[in-house]
Amino acid sequence: MNYKGDIPSAVIRRLPRYYRYLTDLLNNDIQKVSSRELSERMGFTASQIRQDFNYFGGFGQQGYGYNVQYLYKEIGAILGVDKKKTMVIIGAGNLGRALANYMNFRTKGFELVGIFDVKKELIGQDINGIRIKCIDEIDEFINHANVDIGVLSVPYDQAADVADKLVNCGIRALWNFSPMDLQLPQGVVVENVHLSDSLMVLSFMLSQLQTGSDKMIDKKSLGLRV
Amino acid sequence: MNYKGDIPSAVIRRLPRYYRYLTDLLNNDIQKVSSRELSERMGFTASQIRQDFNYFGGFGQQGYGYNVQYLYKEIGAILGVDKKKTMVIIGAGNLGRALANYMNFRTKGFELVGIFDVKKELIGQDINGIRIKCIDEIDEFINHANVDIGVLSVPYDQAADVADKLVNCGIRALWNFSPMDLQLPQGVVVENVHLSDSLMVLSFMLSQLQTGSDKMIDKKSLGLRV
Repeated sequence: MNYKGDIPSAVIRRLPRYYRYLTDLLNNDIQKVSSRELSERMGFTASQIRQDFNYFGGFGQQGYGYNVQYLYKEIGAILGVDKKKTMVIIGAGNLGRALANYMNFRTKGFELVGIFDVKKELIGQDINGIRIKCIDEIDEFINHANVDIGVLSVPYDQAADVADKLVNCGIRALWNFSPMDLQLPQGVVVENVHLSDSLMVLSFMLSQLQTGSDKMIDKKSLGLRV
Repeated sequence: MNYKGDIPSAVIRRLPRYYRYLTDLLNNDIQKVSSRELSERMGFTASQIRQDFNYFGGFGQQGYGYNVQYLYKEIGAILGVDKKKTMVIIGAGNLGRALANYMNFRTKGFELVGIFDVKKELIGQDINGIRIKCIDEIDEFINHANVDIGVLSVPYDQAADVADKLVNCGIRALWNFSPMDLQLPQGVVVENVHLSDSLMVLSFMLSQLQTGSDKMIDKKSLGLRV
């Protein structure tokens, strides 16, 4: 795909949101949508939407509006969700289990193929038809399976080691739920989900509300994080 | 606190990250830090850090650097984590349990005071010493307890109803893990954690890597999301 120049990360972060809304439109058999209609549903301005889409060539709005099916397909392709991605979860605690059960992932083209942990009492247990394996088996597992994404739901003090292990096995994308900011070599991408950071941002917004100084912050853009 | 003008949401989103690094410094008995040292640890430029801090009056860097304890205290106060906040979790599935067990919250001044669900088989069970109650009891519970934050770990089709219920009970801050973008009245703040959006951003980055076109995106700012 020929992108028009560097794409700001904020634009990339809005794409999944467009994709979700387009999915809803398709589920409701809506075939055409104008940037104004999309803007009303999503809370962005119509000009923002057109500006975002222009990074990807504009998606050919003609006359009345965008072809929903076409837009859905194009944005899906940009996000790479048109191609199946396989993932393993490291850490089968509550969060790992929650992620394993989040079957929504599968419908978007993400397939969970393995779950690993260090705890003897967890190994051999079954989550959604997948047997938890010992972390020591991961090298061999990845050598025999094609794994795109490693999900880290391990404690802080294990995160760096596990990340190194996965990268050494050839995994190039990490979804990191540990509170550590991972330092990774070039050619590896990481998406950090720092839950406590998110909670502190909420705490900040609430404090602003409570002290009546909430006019000073860009509440909408904070609240509408995608 | 007198903030200097409107603070961009990106700056607010970096504050928890500063707070985490300052916590590490304190734990290592480091009492002074320069913006350059902080920059090396965190991966931001020193000028970015000074610029961020200037929104809050600069935190008085003098000579060698910042006083770590002072900076930690000030940023904590801005984030509102210096005052205890109470929270209830709605939805005691795997994700709700993971959040309940994430005791890290408590050390940062967040105290879990109640867990609610609709499922009869869950009600009465115990998570970390807190008995799961029926969602129908929530009005009365909130009338008798001071609850600052409602955590929504419920499915898509229940999110809007539960959010309305909490807001009607007087809760002004929602931490929303359901895949729905909540429409809330003024005077209520919401922090959405859309896990599938986050996974799709990772998928995008991986696709860029695989097609060799990763030079076109601002990888660092994507990867270093705070």
